[in-house]
Amino acid sequence: MTDALTHPLVKDGWFKETGTLWPGQAMTLEVKEILHVERSKFQDVLVFQSTTYGNVLVLDGVIQATERDEFSYQEMMTHVPVFAHPNPKRVLVIGGGDGGVLREVVKHEGVEEVVLCEIDEAVINASKKYLPSMAVGFQHPKVKIHVGDGFAFLEDKVDTFDVIITDSSDPVGPAASLFQAKFFELMKNALRDGGIICTQCECLWLHLPIIKEVLGFTRKLFPAVEYGFVTIPTYPSGQIGLMVCSKNGSLDLKKPQRRWTKEQEAKLCRYYNAEIHEACFVLPQFARAALEDAK
Amino acid sequence: MTDALTHPLVKDGWFKETGTLWPGQAMTLEVKEILHVERSKFQDVLVFQSTTYGNVLVLDGVIQATERDEFSYQEMMTHVPVFAHPNPKRVLVIGGGDGGVLREVVKHEGVEEVVLCEIDEAVINASKKYLPSMAVGFQHPKVKIHVGDGFAFLEDKVDTFDVIITDSSDPVGPAASLFQAKFFELMKNALRDGGIICTQCECLWLHLPIIKEVLGFTRKLFPAVEYGFVTIPTYPSGQIGLMVCSKNGSLDLKKPQRRWTKEQEAKLCRYYNAEIHEACFVLPQFARAALEDAK
Repeated sequence: MTDALTHPLVKDGWFKETGTLWPGQAMTLEVKEILHVERSKFQDVLVFQSTTYGNVLVLDGVIQATERDEFSYQEMMTHVPVFAHPNPKRVLVIGGGDGGVLREVVKHEGVEEVVLCEIDEAVINASKKYLPSMAVGFQHPKVKIHVGDGFAFLEDKVDTFDVIITDSSDPVGPAASLFQAKFFELMKNALRDGGIICTQCECLWLHLPIIKEVLGFTRKLFPAVEYGFVTIPTYPSGQIGLMVCSKNGSLDLKKPQRRWTKEQEAKLCRYYNAEIHEACFVLPQFARAALEDAK
Repeated sequence: MTDALTHPLVKDGWFKETGTLWPGQAMTLEVKEILHVERSKFQDVLVFQSTTYGNVLVLDGVIQATERDEFSYQEMMTHVPVFAHPNPKRVLVIGGGDGGVLREVVKHEGVEEVVLCEIDEAVINASKKYLPSMAVGFQHPKVKIHVGDGFAFLEDKVDTFDVIITDSSDPVGPAASLFQAKFFELMKNALRDGGIICTQCECLWLHLPIIKEVLGFTRKLFPAVEYGFVTIPTYPSGQIGLMVCSKNGSLDLKKPQRRWTKEQEAKLCRYYNAEIHEACFVLPQFARAALEDAK
């Protein structure tokens, strides 16, 4: 007899990621062992060991991170807004319960404090146990953890953060409110002068209507708004976007204000470098045409 | 009774793309109808209608083109080398039996002749029937078709072409020889002075050892060599690379020598534009580090 874990999305030794946001296509990963199955207060939490992508965190059936390729997303979500800011001291991370964005933020020595607000403590606990190379971010002395709703957390925050990074899941389930104009207004209020936000904003190959909607209201709220992308094999269609906005209209978000030396980049980064900071904002013609006049 | 076609890679209404070059992962596409199943002289040929990616051409179990996203690959494989050349007149396409690269080459009015050398006539015929928006390339009066082996075709060609585009399948099966130094020597001999080649060269997320090997011998053969990438959802890990080489060492292949106007780009392109020509060569840190010293 075995008491091996089971999960309805793992069949014949493979996990299959179907989703309403990517109809007719599904990434599949071969499973070596299911490590964790939990129905948290907010969502279905699955962790499995894959045969070629290391441990994999899945929330409500959607891959959030694999140990093999998570670095590209975490680095770009973090270093693009932090380097676009001339001198950030206080950083807020909303979501990001795996700790990966924290791990990247604390590489910036000038940052004095990082607050993480994650709604689901089950994600933090599963990551500490099964994704230690990401959860290492929780251990840094500059980090403060708040378990709770990002929306509620922001409501009384004014003039507080230099950079806010929203590392959320997709706009279905617990993260739906994080793709609405009201949330971006709260983030704007919580920013200091010249502050920058960076939010996960879906895939240009799949979700131009969602991206256009978010561009529409961010362009009303912020004088500087840019959309970039990062390649990551285990997200749907192999990439995901970043929406980067600043209260400082004279700032070119596409250009890093500071940069690490080549040696520091080689030591600290696996995806980000100062050149890809600029290149990530160069979009394929179809996306450029669709997004340039979004209102 | 039905006489609907079947194929071993289509189960429960989904096609699954497993492969030895991407172990432990597989893209899957939902199948509406299998349109064509054939064992050609060279390979297994499958065409199916998907639910969300249009018609899909599969050779030996590997997706070659879907109607929804093929344009990104065809445009970059073509317009990057053609625009990197100051004045190309004669273009050779090796492989490319779906006609998509031909469709792109003939958008360049200065090109006087395009020769296509495809080993498998079954691919040409299946594409003409099921991928008409790609096979339209065969109809242009500047196009000449040669059915045969690319290796053999090149053997007596000297000082003949300005641009050679190798649109091949992966280095297993009929295209294996197209990833070897000998083939690149033949292409070099077939180029006129200042000529440029562009070859499909796998995915930086999956195949750095293959890419390093090709870089090693191309850097010995050509004074200018660059590796770029294009995003495409239905290729493994969502992207594929281009190896671009020139006999002219003073040419910066990353910069287009000519460009279409914004209006022409909007009319003629869905992926390529002059900015993405440059940006496609900006690699993530891990790939840049791995490739910069490949010998």
